[in-house]
Amino acid sequence: MNPMMVIPRDKHVYSFGPNMKEVARAKPGEIVIFQTLDALGGQVKSEEDTIEKIDFSRVNPATGPLYVEGAKRGGILRVDILDIKVEGKGAVVTAPGAGVLGKKVERPQTRICEVKDGFVIFKGIKIPAMPMIGVIGVAYDEEVPTGTPGKHGGNMDTNLIRKGTTIYFPVFVDGAYLAIGDLHAVMGDGEVCVSACEVSGEVTVRVTPMEGKLEWPLLETEDSFYLLVSDENLDKAIEEAVSLGVEALRKSNDLSWDEAYMLASLVMDVEISQLVDPRKTVRVRIPKGYVRLESFLT
Amino acid sequence: MNPMMVIPRDKHVYSFGPNMKEVARAKPGEIVIFQTLDALGGQVKSEEDTIEKIDFSRVNPATGPLYVEGAKRGGILRVDILDIKVEGKGAVVTAPGAGVLGKKVERPQTRICEVKDGFVIFKGIKIPAMPMIGVIGVAYDEEVPTGTPGKHGGNMDTNLIRKGTTIYFPVFVDGAYLAIGDLHAVMGDGEVCVSACEVSGEVTVRVTPMEGKLEWPLLETEDSFYLLVSDENLDKAIEEAVSLGVEALRKSNDLSWDEAYMLASLVMDVEISQLVDPRKTVRVRIPKGYVRLESFLT
Repeated sequence: MNPMMVIPRDKHVYSFGPNMKEVARAKPGEIVIFQTLDALGGQVKSEEDTIEKIDFSRVNPATGPLYVEGAKRGGILRVDILDIKVEGKGAVVTAPGAGVLGKKVERPQTRICEVKDGFVIFKGIKIPAMPMIGVIGVAYDEEVPTGTPGKHGGNMDTNLIRKGTTIYFPVFVDGAYLAIGDLHAVMGDGEVCVSACEVSGEVTVRVTPMEGKLEWPLLETEDSFYLLVSDENLDKAIEEAVSLGVEALRKSNDLSWDEAYMLASLVMDVEISQLVDPRKTVRVRIPKGYVRLESFLT
Repeated sequence: MNPMMVIPRDKHVYSFGPNMKEVARAKPGEIVIFQTLDALGGQVKSEEDTIEKIDFSRVNPATGPLYVEGAKRGGILRVDILDIKVEGKGAVVTAPGAGVLGKKVERPQTRICEVKDGFVIFKGIKIPAMPMIGVIGVAYDEEVPTGTPGKHGGNMDTNLIRKGTTIYFPVFVDGAYLAIGDLHAVMGDGEVCVSACEVSGEVTVRVTPMEGKLEWPLLETEDSFYLLVSDENLDKAIEEAVSLGVEALRKSNDLSWDEAYMLASLVMDVEISQLVDPRKTVRVRIPKGYVRLESFLT
């Protein structure tokens, strides 16, 4: 077995676009480690480092991109999240105008958290750490900043993108060009204040090109599938995600569209990933008992 | 011990308002059984009974109201859900314009489900039953149809209002005037097609007046508290619920408002209850480790 490929954190991008330049190349099924900077580009080291003081051109670095051999435009890239390690110190930031209640924030604020023995310590409060990936995506047909989520993935800030889960991405450019960043030691659904516990760290993934067709990223956990859809308008994101979920239920269960819509009302959950990025991200969950992977991928 | 009080299903209302007339009276801490009609008023018995054929003045009956001695305007009514029993047959309905994807529905549709041995059978698909209460609420300052949720509760269609959970309501009229209806044998978060598996049944509750102040209903499960907020506008409902959640975190943890906002971003989840009633219902979840009941009730 070859030593595992490591992409260092100084190899990073700030957008997903059509002309990404690979920094590494993987074979189908290969395991790769992405070392990542935190979403603030490592610029926030103390509680005096509030976000109006930092260089915004260095925000949201995503390590990569990785060219995956065999990944073809119009196909799918499967990414298994094998491990996530986060460093011992993280930052939470907010500012006037930021997040769901931004109009109530009077001045930029930073709090530093310790991450230790499986806990995040915020102002003395012990929170079980639950490391996750904020930004993970592939090259897209147009230039999208790494801070924005879309059909290519990107800043989906989805709590379930954790060790043990799998994401399927539509591939827009041959080679896929996977990039990963913005790890969180812990985050609540919604990410209401605009940031989570922002940490640097490293992610170990297996990358596997597949045939098939996807419109939006699909997440697989042990018991469920989740469609991840992002839009400026929350209601519109929900409508799109529900529509795709109903379609998958229809295909899996030999139902009329109306019947699949009714079944969705019984077994599908509409959930919030994040409410604070340039586009909001929602997910619909369908337990595996009601749907097959193939129903999503055609 | 007295035999348990039973309110039969023919004693029901179609709105929560300031002038409700009690059909029964309970002492503080008393256990009461509410027998309920389904949300369609028992009018849908076969798949030919589509919703354009039914009498809409008989839709959403809520059994009660129950006058609770000691419940005072400006105080709180605690309702413990001790048991929910549902009958063996339920209906799922949809129609053009109904639910998240109503514009794709071409004609009204009804499907009958069997509810048996802990499962709901929809078109041969076995779904684990998870009985819940769609409508539960108290008298309000203005007349609100039972199909609409609000500060008084009502049609919150919240999946977590199940056996074993507790809801706290603000009391607007002395005696509270609790009414309950619209049981579901199973429902997904969102209730996307406009209905769940609609069933008749009975609910056993304990009613306890309390001192304190609440703006919106609060739900307590074994491990978490949930604020339940409803509004025509989903973003507005979320903003209000997040704001109340941050306030509870601030009070419980001796934090500045900004710090509570940041803590919320780490430990609070924004979740969807339903997207299809005249007002949408969202909930924010805060695990019990981070907040005390008293922080919500003052």
